[in-house]
Amino acid sequence: MGASQNDRWPLGEFDLIDRILARLGDAMARDILVPPGDDAAVWATTAGGAAGTIDVLAEGNHWRPDTMSMADVGWRAVAVNVSDLAAMGAEPQQLLVASVLGPDVTLDDLDGFVDGLAEACRAHGIRVAGGDIVRGNATSFTVAAYGRVDLDAGGEAVTMLRSTARPGDRVAVSGAPGASSAGLALIEAGRAGEPAAAPLLTAHRRPVGRVTVGRAALAAGVRCAIDVSDGLLQDLGHIAWRSEVGIEVAAAALPLHPAAVTLLGQPAALDLALGGGEDFELVLTGERETLRRVDGPELPVTLIGHVVEAHPGDVVVWSDDGEAYEPPSRGWDQLRPQRLPEAPPEPGRAPA
Amino acid sequence: MGASQNDRWPLGEFDLIDRILARLGDAMARDILVPPGDDAAVWATTAGGAAGTIDVLAEGNHWRPDTMSMADVGWRAVAVNVSDLAAMGAEPQQLLVASVLGPDVTLDDLDGFVDGLAEACRAHGIRVAGGDIVRGNATSFTVAAYGRVDLDAGGEAVTMLRSTARPGDRVAVSGAPGASSAGLALIEAGRAGEPAAAPLLTAHRRPVGRVTVGRAALAAGVRCAIDVSDGLLQDLGHIAWRSEVGIEVAAAALPLHPAAVTLLGQPAALDLALGGGEDFELVLTGERETLRRVDGPELPVTLIGHVVEAHPGDVVVWSDDGEAYEPPSRGWDQLRPQRLPEAPPEPGRAPA
Repeated sequence: MGASQNDRWPLGEFDLIDRILARLGDAMARDILVPPGDDAAVWATTAGGAAGTIDVLAEGNHWRPDTMSMADVGWRAVAVNVSDLAAMGAEPQQLLVASVLGPDVTLDDLDGFVDGLAEACRAHGIRVAGGDIVRGNATSFTVAAYGRVDLDAGGEAVTMLRSTARPGDRVAVSGAPGASSAGLALIEAGRAGEPAAAPLLTAHRRPVGRVTVGRAALAAGVRCAIDVSDGLLQDLGHIAWRSEVGIEVAAAALPLHPAAVTLLGQPAALDLALGGGEDFELVLTGERETLRRVDGPELPVTLIGHVVEAHPGDVVVWSDDGEAYEPPSRGWDQLRPQRLPEAPPEPGRAPA
Repeated sequence: MGASQNDRWPLGEFDLIDRILARLGDAMARDILVPPGDDAAVWATTAGGAAGTIDVLAEGNHWRPDTMSMADVGWRAVAVNVSDLAAMGAEPQQLLVASVLGPDVTLDDLDGFVDGLAEACRAHGIRVAGGDIVRGNATSFTVAAYGRVDLDAGGEAVTMLRSTARPGDRVAVSGAPGASSAGLALIEAGRAGEPAAAPLLTAHRRPVGRVTVGRAALAAGVRCAIDVSDGLLQDLGHIAWRSEVGIEVAAAALPLHPAAVTLLGQPAALDLALGGGEDFELVLTGERETLRRVDGPELPVTLIGHVVEAHPGDVVVWSDDGEAYEPPSRGWDQLRPQRLPEAPPEPGRAPA
């Protein structure tokens, strides 16, 4: 251990954990049966169901230092997990957080991460019940999230699944899918400083898990949902495959973000809405009137297509001229291409 | 994405997930309310308590390719988490697993990891309820584990804490602490091939979370425990600090592993028992007769010291000659020194 590493880490593991817990403030679950600080946290459960999910953010894949701040990374680590709970219609309760700190991470970086994490916990109504922190050869953060699910009289979970779309259902999406990847495209093109880009950068850096939409959809009677993490078409494809149905989407119905259309043009905004990921909006299927009850003044829920018996497992996009449209990308594969290129663009570079 | 990456990854993300789920076999939680494959898993809960913990294993810190196989890494990812549940006296139930695959990981590596994970799930009576898998710049695996805890009539968790040691308590430890780090020391010294090293290598590569000891201790009335993850003295220090008591350990009472004494000598075996980590044995404190009820023919639970009012927060080791003994290391700090040196030793190199 060299002097420079000592300088960077004036604190040992346990002092650092105390610092993190203090910094989390009321985002830490202090009033549970056994709060963070023992071998495991313990919280009270009621009879019913628990929803559990885990997501990892890896530097170079989900972020680069020039695409978002460490506080944004902390925020996203919470939002992506809460989004999974939202897609089940679950009520978020506890988080566990594991951090692998690469050689370049500073104490300031970690403080930023914790601050963003705490902010997102407050915004999403969830609290940190425990964690782990170690050194590694590259930086990544993993969050596991838990929520509550009701059971019906027969003991089945009252939740929304990917496997419950039925022919005749309409398909709806919350918010404006493609906004997050439009924000990333503007960062990559050196256009992050343009004032009109601000809402798209926020969509990329501070996505919101749609808990309110998920809870309202479940209450309205929606029983099929997924969150848009890998790209709208790919995520619709999961519903089509698991439900053994076809899905047809009308390109003209897609709620493109106005700033994406203005800054990138309608064709690019459409392609990003279809194939861009990390929006964390919810896709819902159900009867038209049921879905309409979820639409709200704070966040629109827009009808974009319908579920059919034909072409089970496949998603078809119809363009205005009545032709099937194939966008350049249907979404991301977390294992094959690296999501982010290795070399950051020069600052201020003009778009290609 | 070059051709070589395609060769290495003949499968896309979702085919790979199907492959992993098939490979997990009955280690996957198939019969829960919503099994893996949706946005979140859902399982039934009873009224009571849930214990939750998260631990990450990072390549270069917790393992190197020459210190253990990928199957061993998979096993350990389960064991280290179950060990935390065992230290609470909780009953293991579900795991969530997040994998960050560095550039060098092959499909064979991942298969090995999954096989070891599944084996450990079966051995520890816990099942995988969900996961996430992404590419990153270095390999790490994070597991979050959940268990059941009973509540008493007053709604308090019936569990074992770090903060409940009382002056007059005796201190006991299960198994033979130091065996894991003795195994690692033999690997680092190029002596892994010596037949007598086998049980120590197993202790390092296939540690067992002491669920049976934890459940028996709780049933016997023990209310204070910790698992030995960072080193016996450091973990005893957590009890001393959280309970505001002193702890005194008799060096002569420590149950050293006979193979460690034979291969490394008594002084080194003692130092590894005091400062070596990753044994995942349980430390318990309580009345002598209570602790004796946990001692069993399958795994000894040995009295090693006592809890005192003096020197609160501190752990003192007394050697045979009545002097306080300070070992070279009291345990690991996950953040400061790298646990494993960067360069692997030459194969077959004689010990220094």
